[in-house]
Amino acid sequence: MTTEAAAEANKPAAKDPRALPDVSGLVVGVLGGTGDQGRGLAYRLATAGQRVIVGSRSADRARTAAEELGLGVRGLENAECATESDVVIVAVPWEGHAKTLESLRDELAGKLVIDCVNPLGFDKKGAYAIRPEEGSAAEQAAALLPQSRVAAAFHHLSAVLLQDPQVAQIDTDVMVLGDNREDTDIVQALAARIPGMRGIYAGRLRNAHQVESLVANLISVNRRYKAHAGLRITDV
Amino acid sequence: MTTEAAAEANKPAAKDPRALPDVSGLVVGVLGGTGDQGRGLAYRLATAGQRVIVGSRSADRARTAAEELGLGVRGLENAECATESDVVIVAVPWEGHAKTLESLRDELAGKLVIDCVNPLGFDKKGAYAIRPEEGSAAEQAAALLPQSRVAAAFHHLSAVLLQDPQVAQIDTDVMVLGDNREDTDIVQALAARIPGMRGIYAGRLRNAHQVESLVANLISVNRRYKAHAGLRITDV
Repeated sequence: MTTEAAAEANKPAAKDPRALPDVSGLVVGVLGGTGDQGRGLAYRLATAGQRVIVGSRSADRARTAAEELGLGVRGLENAECATESDVVIVAVPWEGHAKTLESLRDELAGKLVIDCVNPLGFDKKGAYAIRPEEGSAAEQAAALLPQSRVAAAFHHLSAVLLQDPQVAQIDTDVMVLGDNREDTDIVQALAARIPGMRGIYAGRLRNAHQVESLVANLISVNRRYKAHAGLRITDV
Repeated sequence: MTTEAAAEANKPAAKDPRALPDVSGLVVGVLGGTGDQGRGLAYRLATAGQRVIVGSRSADRARTAAEELGLGVRGLENAECATESDVVIVAVPWEGHAKTLESLRDELAGKLVIDCVNPLGFDKKGAYAIRPEEGSAAEQAAALLPQSRVAAAFHHLSAVLLQDPQVAQIDTDVMVLGDNREDTDIVQALAARIPGMRGIYAGRLRNAHQVESLVANLISVNRRYKAHAGLRITDV
């Protein structure tokens, strides 16, 4: 037994990050599902057997993306996508975040909304974090959608790897944030459906800003090392 | 060959995060070296063969900590510690950060200063990020120490694991931030001296805030999973 294994053995049993609810019957909508991140998530979830709807401002673009994805994915205009989904992932560009959510307040009422938007700016020195007035994109979503249950996750995934059918496993953990345990459990379970991925609870929404912003650092990592960096949480 | 290995093989050669300068001759001072984080870092670096000085406001406390650590570690009052070191790690509590650095401006002139301070607040809901006026603790250090070279690193280490002599390897990467390549290379090289650890360049100082704040999330991880969580960056 290594010293680390011995240390492990002396600790109380950790909560198994895979002991999670069955989410296989949930319909997952992806707003901004025609963008790289949204399309990549739709592809991975549909490949895992989830029923997926990609949403877009344009029903035509949504249908085209859905046809390209195959795997039973449907494409609908954003409002219909929200209405027909049990869980809605928000993968729109930060610039359109507030406006899109405001316009879908009624359709998203009562739904679990998973925000994965990274508010970033770019200049000649690279990417930098933008701090929304509400604290984070996720807290902005919570403020704009008082009748929805808002969680945050899926921030650190490489859209390149997600969309590459040659990549069988996504070697990364997903930090899941939210103020309601049942909801974060559902989000963790969705993440865990994708081979290689784990969903790890990582705090309340008030601590979402740094998780969203960390993408600026991963962009620096990618440039320096020519990588598609992801994150693993050790000792869990 | 797996599909991921195939994808790797097609990529241009990544910069090896271990191809770094020889830092074995540098004297490393640790301000706040009597606290848990500072003492843990001093222990690991000294164990790796680095010459280490722990600094404290109290020369007595510094000497006591150094004697407890053994391994040739010396203990000095903060100002002497700064003067006699080539590289100075700032591991003081956030509350004393600005005051300590202001008082050591002259002693730290010309030195490489590695800030590892996490500005956090705590309430009954747990930890939350504090945003310094300058953007981050590291940027505050840079503002207060115009004649020093400031980098940021070593934020996400478990003080418990660092200090546990039963733990042979620290299973985590160290995100290294800074605006000067030579300096971040030195910091990466220092991190790489500790078994299990890699130093990974992760952006400029302006992107330090989210790295410092992420400790609030790791505290949530630790509570939920009874872990001493660290981070690994994948695909590097």
